[in-house]
Amino acid sequence: MSRTASPTAHPAERILLGPGPSPVPQRVLRALGAPTLGHLDPQYLAIMDETCAMLREVFQTKNALTFPVSGTGMAGMECCATNLVEPSDEVLVCVNGVFGLRMKDVIERCGATVHTVEAPWGDVFSNEQIADALEKHPKVKLVGIVHAETSTGAHQPLEGLAEIVHARGALLLVDAVTSLGGHELRVDDWGIDAIYSGTQKCLSCPPGLSPVSFGDRALAKMDARKTKPQSWYLDVSMLRKYYTGGGGGGRVYHHTAPINMTYALREALTIVLEEGLEARIARHAAMHQRLRTGLAELGLGYIPTRSLHSLNCIRIPDGANDAAVRTRLLTDYGIEIGGGLGVMAGKAWRIGLMGHGASVRNVDLVLAALRACLR
Amino acid sequence: MSRTASPTAHPAERILLGPGPSPVPQRVLRALGAPTLGHLDPQYLAIMDETCAMLREVFQTKNALTFPVSGTGMAGMECCATNLVEPSDEVLVCVNGVFGLRMKDVIERCGATVHTVEAPWGDVFSNEQIADALEKHPKVKLVGIVHAETSTGAHQPLEGLAEIVHARGALLLVDAVTSLGGHELRVDDWGIDAIYSGTQKCLSCPPGLSPVSFGDRALAKMDARKTKPQSWYLDVSMLRKYYTGGGGGGRVYHHTAPINMTYALREALTIVLEEGLEARIARHAAMHQRLRTGLAELGLGYIPTRSLHSLNCIRIPDGANDAAVRTRLLTDYGIEIGGGLGVMAGKAWRIGLMGHGASVRNVDLVLAALRACLR
Repeated sequence: MSRTASPTAHPAERILLGPGPSPVPQRVLRALGAPTLGHLDPQYLAIMDETCAMLREVFQTKNALTFPVSGTGMAGMECCATNLVEPSDEVLVCVNGVFGLRMKDVIERCGATVHTVEAPWGDVFSNEQIADALEKHPKVKLVGIVHAETSTGAHQPLEGLAEIVHARGALLLVDAVTSLGGHELRVDDWGIDAIYSGTQKCLSCPPGLSPVSFGDRALAKMDARKTKPQSWYLDVSMLRKYYTGGGGGGRVYHHTAPINMTYALREALTIVLEEGLEARIARHAAMHQRLRTGLAELGLGYIPTRSLHSLNCIRIPDGANDAAVRTRLLTDYGIEIGGGLGVMAGKAWRIGLMGHGASVRNVDLVLAALRACLR
Repeated sequence: MSRTASPTAHPAERILLGPGPSPVPQRVLRALGAPTLGHLDPQYLAIMDETCAMLREVFQTKNALTFPVSGTGMAGMECCATNLVEPSDEVLVCVNGVFGLRMKDVIERCGATVHTVEAPWGDVFSNEQIADALEKHPKVKLVGIVHAETSTGAHQPLEGLAEIVHARGALLLVDAVTSLGGHELRVDDWGIDAIYSGTQKCLSCPPGLSPVSFGDRALAKMDARKTKPQSWYLDVSMLRKYYTGGGGGGRVYHHTAPINMTYALREALTIVLEEGLEARIARHAAMHQRLRTGLAELGLGYIPTRSLHSLNCIRIPDGANDAAVRTRLLTDYGIEIGGGLGVMAGKAWRIGLMGHGASVRNVDLVLAALRACLR
């Protein structure tokens, strides 16, 4: 007599080489399953403080207001928008993929007038393009840009941009969902005013939290608001009292934080800092190069002009069946890669080499598997 | 040579008898730490479907649109508000504690005019009171009420209310954060149009998800919206395509769901249904009676006129030091109980007997500990 487990009973051990989530180290999964504490327990508050301190190191910032929003990456985007934008504000969003488009949508829902500067999908923006757009729209109070455009794999340079934005009296908001912990990202040195990320990309933690950081200019804009942020859940004027005890009145309960996810994030950040941020970024670069060389040998080319190391967006070769190849990778190898998103659907594959997933073992395996599936 | 672990290294094994989170069974913690799947992996989608099906059983509803919002309980409140309320709508909120006040705040931020009907903290509303308020405000399109007011422990009856609300052409929105899985709650029989809860109360799962359910009337109101919901993250017109494939176009990616939290919720719901909803509700009632009897022997009285079984809000006796007693419970016994919230601060203790925590062992232990601490 044979026994068959329900097909959903035990999650399969996939190798996650798509656009995220990325592979989660066993240490992080174990931390996730530690006993649940209360959200006002002194021990939990100490764990949260440690987590925020490590987030500051990884963001390379001294910003006191650096914490994980209680939601996945897009909750972080919405947190920045709802607090930094007031109805009737003018905002400039740089759009060269799905996540720029999404930022436009999120900010418009805050009642702002959103101007866009656009680049072809796969391209990045020059500082001059953005300066020209600001010249055309002098009332802009916030510029939003995506550091790591997960839909195209484009890697946007950010150095020198804040100076241009600040000279116009505007703030710089950055989407770093797919770059934090895997790419150079210097929040303070680069003058970034507000930034959000996700836990399930280069930090190799399960999805569920969205690290954010706000600088002094962003705090001043929030403090000067005439209207309440439209979201209570994401209202930073209250969240900061819980996370930092800041804003007067000491530490105050706001909402119940996702306790166990905080354990996991703390462990994931510990691993990042044990490796060292610089070494980790270099590892991502080396694994990207190794993959790129192997893909070239297979005749596979990149879509973006300037590719991320953490996400490799490649053109599906003529004659290959998109869905069939991805299904075979999943069933025969247990490997997940991503399909194309938005206008890239059916045209691109997205191979993520993020955090724990960016290893020689995974690069050589995915190349071998692709070689077999494309034969 | 002695070795001392960092005080934050390993979360302590507390007995969580406060207003939530509640004690999490080992089975649920183990499920939480299972390997992370991608959010579009067929196996994960099957796990999500199972989770939603079990949520329907626990909510006692056939509503297709029943799913866990990717945030803690207050994200569920905000999800209901942002989708059901349009700017310039009139709404009636029943306020008899912190969570009614919060609902008013959240709904006002959606641009609605909020009327309130109020009752003293600790009291509940009669259907007549609400009918009178609707008579006074005939344009009201939504009535919001808290089933389980976590700040006072008051247990609001809901039977017959929907008929009154529907007769006025309005919808009924219910906060069931502290009652789902521990109290009788019949979404379909009681005519509730929209409802939200949390995972960390009577379901005994860690915090991080907020189960919601929407009936046909609520869907019709959302479909008839003239404006986009102000939140992209919580926009049900998009979320339903991911969770149910509904609204046309099949299953579509929206945001990255908190994968591992879904495993935990599935396991927690499995435990609820193994016990049986009716047996579980009866257990909560029996443990409440056992506690109430023991508290009376200690001379401790209840604040609400009609107490929840899951949350027992008691008057701090004269001469007892609120903070000192709670600190001693935490340090000597590893027991967390809650202090008072809002106007109850310093006046009340809140003893939660939720889900896995509602046991003879815990009731007798907390009574013994209180007896020792109040001696």
